[in-house]
Amino acid sequence: MPEIPATMRQLRSLVAPEGELRLSLATVDTPLPREREVLVRVEAAPVNPSDLGLLLAMADVSQAVVGGSPEAPTVTAPIAEPVMRALAARVGDAMPVGNEGAGVVVAAGESREAQPLLGRTVGFLGGATYGEYCLASPRMCLPLPEGASAVDGASSFVNPLTALGMVETMRREGHTGLVHTAAASNLGQMLNRICLADGVPLVNIVRRPEQATLLREQGAEHVCDSSESTFEADLVAALRDTGATLAFDAVGGGRLAGQVLNAMEAAIVADDAPYSRYGSDVHKQVYVYGSLDPRPIELRRRFGFAWGVGGWLLMPFLARTSPEDLARMRQRVADELSSTFASHYSDEISLREALDVETLQRCARQATGEKFLLRPQR
Amino acid sequence: MPEIPATMRQLRSLVAPEGELRLSLATVDTPLPREREVLVRVEAAPVNPSDLGLLLAMADVSQAVVGGSPEAPTVTAPIAEPVMRALAARVGDAMPVGNEGAGVVVAAGESREAQPLLGRTVGFLGGATYGEYCLASPRMCLPLPEGASAVDGASSFVNPLTALGMVETMRREGHTGLVHTAAASNLGQMLNRICLADGVPLVNIVRRPEQATLLREQGAEHVCDSSESTFEADLVAALRDTGATLAFDAVGGGRLAGQVLNAMEAAIVADDAPYSRYGSDVHKQVYVYGSLDPRPIELRRRFGFAWGVGGWLLMPFLARTSPEDLARMRQRVADELSSTFASHYSDEISLREALDVETLQRCARQATGEKFLLRPQR
Repeated sequence: MPEIPATMRQLRSLVAPEGELRLSLATVDTPLPREREVLVRVEAAPVNPSDLGLLLAMADVSQAVVGGSPEAPTVTAPIAEPVMRALAARVGDAMPVGNEGAGVVVAAGESREAQPLLGRTVGFLGGATYGEYCLASPRMCLPLPEGASAVDGASSFVNPLTALGMVETMRREGHTGLVHTAAASNLGQMLNRICLADGVPLVNIVRRPEQATLLREQGAEHVCDSSESTFEADLVAALRDTGATLAFDAVGGGRLAGQVLNAMEAAIVADDAPYSRYGSDVHKQVYVYGSLDPRPIELRRRFGFAWGVGGWLLMPFLARTSPEDLARMRQRVADELSSTFASHYSDEISLREALDVETLQRCARQATGEKFLLRPQR
Repeated sequence: MPEIPATMRQLRSLVAPEGELRLSLATVDTPLPREREVLVRVEAAPVNPSDLGLLLAMADVSQAVVGGSPEAPTVTAPIAEPVMRALAARVGDAMPVGNEGAGVVVAAGESREAQPLLGRTVGFLGGATYGEYCLASPRMCLPLPEGASAVDGASSFVNPLTALGMVETMRREGHTGLVHTAAASNLGQMLNRICLADGVPLVNIVRRPEQATLLREQGAEHVCDSSESTFEADLVAALRDTGATLAFDAVGGGRLAGQVLNAMEAAIVADDAPYSRYGSDVHKQVYVYGSLDPRPIELRRRFGFAWGVGGWLLMPFLARTSPEDLARMRQRVADELSSTFASHYSDEISLREALDVETLQRCARQATGEKFLLRPQR
């Protein structure tokens, strides 16, 4: 084992009371694992959409400014007044960032869960993976298979378990097909591969023709492009074909969730069905798991009374999942790490480079095909 | 048994293709009960909000016009073009109306469920109770207790079982308190009496000061008036007091459902709680069971990810309810028909008077304190 330094660098995100985001590289004591913990030397950590909310705090990064010193660089950006009210509880806390990553376990607590991981390369869920070292719970570590690198395993939790969780949720709640919005994302491509492998009918909703092409090239059968004038009719046709009555929506604002429910209802009710002012009795569900669109959700009800819209998050889903089911899902991720669950990154950046204004602006755009991998040891 | 006439009068609601609602009194063959049915001579039937959608078809009753003959009166009213699209499936059908009522069982099928009801005065769920006679399933009949009249029992299904169903749903889904909107309605007053009797914390949301007064005079502890400038703060305070995390919403349009979710979240999260961008992990639920406001539902998300909004209807709820639970609920309705479940009517009208323009306009307003009881034998 290499020696563990007493201090380490860690990215921090602070919301200052005057309405300003301050990102910095802090030098902090390297933590020591307690009995049921391990310490991971972080080699790679992805910048997921789920990280950006905490990292960027909805600041206006188009106005970001570099500051500090070459040794201790900072970036600041203004935060609008209404946003500040929603962030009241985090004002003044310089928060660590980063939900997942991968690296080598360099220290382990005395427990029998922790000890076997010593020396292994693991993917893991952390909460502070944007730093040189990070503590983790053995339950939230996935030992990588022989030959897999930390880069291969950096995204082995959030997207793989979210995509598998969508299919699990579909089965648990009695649906037989899925709809996915923002379907050309890394997560969406993963879900498409899972559904193709498992024979689950999937309707992919994208926002641009090139995204539709990308998914079709990956074998997707049903792709509906919301920029097309035929979108609503295309969606109804795809829903008739697939019988999908459960959607996972990353957009979470505007009319899309309601459009999906209305299209599901239109697909369910036959043209010659007798009138019912209560709509069909087939339950139609949309789970919102993201917030790409910050506007209110607007539901124009033409979908009867058998419907639900609700929030969905990975961690509560995992908490509702039996240890056996979780083990099965994790094993599948390990087995298919370089195929079904492979992630692609457009850029690798160091901790210092994460505090580059242009990089932050590109992160904030969340453009399809752009995905950053942080390499904290560089 | 009095003789059953070969024909009877029945109210019919027709949507004509040219965009017109046509209400009429049809003379039709009196139906004969099949093996598992009974025939009820309808003495009284309430005009519930749940009847008005079918009866009035969202027509503009301010422009209603009387027509036909004294023997066969009609009322017509225009229907707006966007509404017509939603009604396509019922165009051309002269539909019977009326979800519930009460009367004497004058004929019964041969089955052992049907026969014992012969001669009894029952409350029942029908689907065509706005007529002189109506078929019913014995499962959907409630024999009224000794001394109770058809008027006493006319509203013994929809409102009582809906109100009891709300409390049952609360228990089944692990909540410990309720929120109710449009809480000064007949249904709302009933729910208030049930919650007071059962010790269930209830937050009543009303739209006017006089409605708040009415509920407080009936013992309601938590009443929030959305016309007050302090409404949102009042709601958070009431939700803190009650711990209610389940709401039943009759309004179903505009911002109210989202306001309730946001207030629940604000009541759950302590002022000094650490920041979580995912919100609390306490599930907050709104069930929409009505459509008093036809606008889209607008959800401004400040309530994290542990939330749901969905449709709720009596019949699917009853279908999910065990026979034992249903028997218990029905017994309670029978036992407390003149107390907890008493309904009050502002007007009694004949079938002919139901085709009066002013009466229809008053029905369409759905004003608190105005409730009509149809008396088909008059």
